[in-house]
Amino acid sequence: MRLSILFGGASFEHAISIVSAITLKEKLSSFELNFIFLDAEHIFYLIDSDSMKAKLFSSGDYKKKPQLSLTSGGFVQKTMFSSKEYKDTVLNLIHGADGEDGTVASLLDFFSIKYIGPRVDASVFSYDKRYTKYLCNAKNVKSLDYEVLSRNEHTNIKMSFPIIIKPSCLGSSIGVSIVKNESELDYALDTAFEYDDSVIVEPFIEGVKEYNLAGYMANGEMKFSIVEEPQKEEFLDFDKKYMDFSRSEQVLKADIDEVLVNKLKLRFTQIYTGLFEGSLIRCDFFVIDDEVYLNEINPIPGSMANYLFEDFASSIEELSASLPHSKRIKADYQYIHSISKAKGK
Amino acid sequence: MRLSILFGGASFEHAISIVSAITLKEKLSSFELNFIFLDAEHIFYLIDSDSMKAKLFSSGDYKKKPQLSLTSGGFVQKTMFSSKEYKDTVLNLIHGADGEDGTVASLLDFFSIKYIGPRVDASVFSYDKRYTKYLCNAKNVKSLDYEVLSRNEHTNIKMSFPIIIKPSCLGSSIGVSIVKNESELDYALDTAFEYDDSVIVEPFIEGVKEYNLAGYMANGEMKFSIVEEPQKEEFLDFDKKYMDFSRSEQVLKADIDEVLVNKLKLRFTQIYTGLFEGSLIRCDFFVIDDEVYLNEINPIPGSMANYLFEDFASSIEELSASLPHSKRIKADYQYIHSISKAKGK
Repeated sequence: MRLSILFGGASFEHAISIVSAITLKEKLSSFELNFIFLDAEHIFYLIDSDSMKAKLFSSGDYKKKPQLSLTSGGFVQKTMFSSKEYKDTVLNLIHGADGEDGTVASLLDFFSIKYIGPRVDASVFSYDKRYTKYLCNAKNVKSLDYEVLSRNEHTNIKMSFPIIIKPSCLGSSIGVSIVKNESELDYALDTAFEYDDSVIVEPFIEGVKEYNLAGYMANGEMKFSIVEEPQKEEFLDFDKKYMDFSRSEQVLKADIDEVLVNKLKLRFTQIYTGLFEGSLIRCDFFVIDDEVYLNEINPIPGSMANYLFEDFASSIEELSASLPHSKRIKADYQYIHSISKAKGK
Repeated sequence: MRLSILFGGASFEHAISIVSAITLKEKLSSFELNFIFLDAEHIFYLIDSDSMKAKLFSSGDYKKKPQLSLTSGGFVQKTMFSSKEYKDTVLNLIHGADGEDGTVASLLDFFSIKYIGPRVDASVFSYDKRYTKYLCNAKNVKSLDYEVLSRNEHTNIKMSFPIIIKPSCLGSSIGVSIVKNESELDYALDTAFEYDDSVIVEPFIEGVKEYNLAGYMANGEMKFSIVEEPQKEEFLDFDKKYMDFSRSEQVLKADIDEVLVNKLKLRFTQIYTGLFEGSLIRCDFFVIDDEVYLNEINPIPGSMANYLFEDFASSIEELSASLPHSKRIKADYQYIHSISKAKGK
């Protein structure tokens, strides 16, 4: 099948997205792929498959590639005398800002482009960790207690140490710190506030069991990956998670019983249904005293969590065939007629 | 000051937006205004002020006007040999889909265009009535009990009659019914599901007190309109609300005491702060036993609720001077360098 991989973006995870795209080039080698790079200036470039190397981007050489612009149904490459259109389904692989905050979803919907990825509302609920808490609350899915600090009022944390401090809107552990006592607090807050005006505080639970599960809906049915127990030290820092984004070897199933697997799938389904259709997401869970807690939703996981799926290429193909239709509403002028009449004009 | 009024959109409230724009032409006559029309096919047109009459749109004659496209910082009109740019601050006046669902916010942010209107997250929380409930919950603002029905499971309403049934994602009373007993239920549900796959059910409270309050933040301070007690029959149906969108005469202040006015302002501030900056919104409240309940957030109220403000033009000017900066994140390749090193490539 044909697919356009959209990657890059004006995001702290810009480079991660490039690595994800390079990984998918390999994992989806049976597909006919186009690569569409969004640079930090918000210009789109068409990158041929052979040029898909990290250095092309870090060197700035990508600027020599043809520019694309958005058009109804896809992207278009305009030259002096002609134009070529790229109208394949898009896989949104822009991690973080632009890709996961609702921007790309809105752009693609506006231009009637079919895509794999979270829709605008799903993006908003997963991009900002505060809103993920609202969602958990509404969907009756447990998550850890939390406090929200804003840049201007960050002295009165009520929770007791150790705590974990995260910018509200960043993934990949960027700006995240574990704070064991008061003396470490200021530095951790300064770090987090470098990335966001809002910071979320949660209890840090030493040695908590973590499980990751990915999945998507196709033909009205949930399809799940294997459950992974991520290796970790205290928590995965950016460098380690980063290596994750280039992962392509399948991992081993977590050694847990069916009861827990089913609990994880149930929580995943509660979060996913009615909101995340069209996307393949990874949910990261904690398990505490046999209870499942949602830690984080990754609506565009690194390299699409390919390593969790037995047959990743078939999964993407299946999902592509089951994307939500964006319903364009037709204009209706009957009320203009009735107001004109009412006003006697 | 200069301002571009963006109106129209592929929305059930398309015609309402046109009427809103015509009303603002009059209310902001001291401004230098451009009018940018988005038609239902998602094509932008530049409409000169003199042509701003309802018939231009209902007749389809707007298609003779020059087309615009999005460009970095604004809109551009391209002709064979030249191009003209329109880079004024935009006032997003597209009601309903496109304007209030996060699409326009994302487009304008993506193209670095300054605008008055809700940002993408504010749009998502006000556009879908379910998410407004989540927000109320998180912000400790009371709202009525509710149930959510989806198209496939709409038989088991637990609430007792009378109830009010609304499509989750529409304003202007479109598709809304009051249901007094079982016999009226099917028709009401069919009507609501014509407009949305999801429907929200609330108790209907005969004769409940309703108050509307509009406001915005400028220079870090909340600025409020007068409080209005809307006239109503059972509830405002579409035709009556529609007439509202062309309102331009100032209304009378509701006859309520300062204590209640302050309660309304407090709830408004809780909802607005940290989410709606950059927009002028109207919150519609119920008051039951002296308690304030949020009914609805209108992030782009009809004709910008101009009739609630003493000096509407100055309010818009003040808000324009206090719009949030959209922060474009710069690309950073240091992690590509570190992964290359780690992989020895």
